[in-house]
Amino acid sequence: MNITSYFSDNLSIMADMNLANTRLVFFLSNGTAITAETLGHSLLAQFPMLHFRTKTIPFINTEEKATLVSEEINRGINEQDELPIVIATMADPNLKKIISQSKALILDPFADFLPRLEKILLVESSNLGGVSHRIANPSMYESRIDAIDFSLVHDDGGKTRNYDESDIILIGVSRTGKTPSCLYLALQFGLKAANYPITEEDMESDILPVPIRPFKDRLYGLTTDAHRLVNIRQERRPNSRYSSMEQCRFEIRAAEEMYHRHNIHYLNTTTMSVEEIAARIVEDTGLHRMKQSV
Amino acid sequence: MNITSYFSDNLSIMADMNLANTRLVFFLSNGTAITAETLGHSLLAQFPMLHFRTKTIPFINTEEKATLVSEEINRGINEQDELPIVIATMADPNLKKIISQSKALILDPFADFLPRLEKILLVESSNLGGVSHRIANPSMYESRIDAIDFSLVHDDGGKTRNYDESDIILIGVSRTGKTPSCLYLALQFGLKAANYPITEEDMESDILPVPIRPFKDRLYGLTTDAHRLVNIRQERRPNSRYSSMEQCRFEIRAAEEMYHRHNIHYLNTTTMSVEEIAARIVEDTGLHRMKQSV
Repeated sequence: MNITSYFSDNLSIMADMNLANTRLVFFLSNGTAITAETLGHSLLAQFPMLHFRTKTIPFINTEEKATLVSEEINRGINEQDELPIVIATMADPNLKKIISQSKALILDPFADFLPRLEKILLVESSNLGGVSHRIANPSMYESRIDAIDFSLVHDDGGKTRNYDESDIILIGVSRTGKTPSCLYLALQFGLKAANYPITEEDMESDILPVPIRPFKDRLYGLTTDAHRLVNIRQERRPNSRYSSMEQCRFEIRAAEEMYHRHNIHYLNTTTMSVEEIAARIVEDTGLHRMKQSV
Repeated sequence: MNITSYFSDNLSIMADMNLANTRLVFFLSNGTAITAETLGHSLLAQFPMLHFRTKTIPFINTEEKATLVSEEINRGINEQDELPIVIATMADPNLKKIISQSKALILDPFADFLPRLEKILLVESSNLGGVSHRIANPSMYESRIDAIDFSLVHDDGGKTRNYDESDIILIGVSRTGKTPSCLYLALQFGLKAANYPITEEDMESDILPVPIRPFKDRLYGLTTDAHRLVNIRQERRPNSRYSSMEQCRFEIRAAEEMYHRHNIHYLNTTTMSVEEIAARIVEDTGLHRMKQSV
């Protein structure tokens, strides 16, 4: 039996480090391991001074596989005799038991929290693995897929006719994060997010561009620092007018003036990940986050 | 001060229920609340027989806001005198303390796990809120954005010239989940995921379509049950040949034959969410999951 597992990309960061000395961290689950991974990354981010080697093993759904994983954990002790760390969300009691007997620090929010939830809810948990990323409500799932379709068709001003169906329309100059933010809003939160690029022509006018003019209440601006924009644009078109400091400064100033003139909420995305941009937009606008796939 | 917070879409499911009797669950965080929400959904999914009303409040980063949230929690007791449930990832000790004094069952993996991690790691945690969804490694972040750009350009067979740069190419008949799966692979795992639709013309041939023929090792097939495909296609083009049971059955059979003939791994996505499809593809192919944004 072959267990596919994979080391995360932070390996490359540590190319010049002694890997054998690095603390090994496993993210384990009966299901997709998305919960274990998300929680695990949050916990490890609280120790920014340390380096970790992380390994995700999803779909641990037989005793045989759990035993193999446990053996792999036991081999994970490093040269300094430091135990591995395991962040696991194992719902099946038998599999949980096998993993919990590994030689490691085991952090399992299911083991800690489910009994406390059972006590207050007065029912037993189902002990089902991998249920949180299943389709539980098909119609809600369909509307999430619809949101993705909408956001794709309405990316980068591609189509503007159905803006009246949108939940939000992101605007901004080229390379301020509009497209990934829209896709994240659609995928994670089920929102129909269009985006419209502000062009130089748009900047010269005191009135809003025609396609977005009727939808002022749904507009949300993105902006970024000029240095960051130059860096990003240099990757695409090095040493061009497009990626010059002068042009980037001009476009950012013009876009921000547009936001102010028309009283459009906006966000500076310079240090933000896609997740943070999306969460802040939702917070700022009061839009609903769709429950993911429960 | 106005706290924006939002009820999730499951409200609509419960339109005919007495909301005042439903247990209220809060997902709270200093940061995006993505970790609290992900963990919270996983925990609640273990109680499929119960209904919950969930509310996410991100960016709780001042004592004033934490106090207002705590007061809101205290008002969240339902008509049956049941306490609310709080799933929180609060890194700041002062804010954590304010939230923890609320009248609720408080589940905070940071409170439980950080001390255990500090003990084994022999360093103190940074107590920084919202760090897990910040950009920590710009070059890794850039390559994630590149993956999104790549997947957008190479969606639905749109461009096929740069398939040699892809990490994976999903194939399948229309509406088997190729596009959302590719976007998720790009957004969450930083993978350059192209997709190519299998057309009727392709089905009539014993050899692989020209654009994907040189990349057999990167192909991964999606399929689904005919009934589900009919349902999905009916939403798009009701009562058409495209959405007929006969046509759906024919296309699925032809695609699966193609997968078998050319020894292409494939997945039946009928009951799977986008998250599960993506996680299974990565597991099946041994591709690397990029660390998200830590």
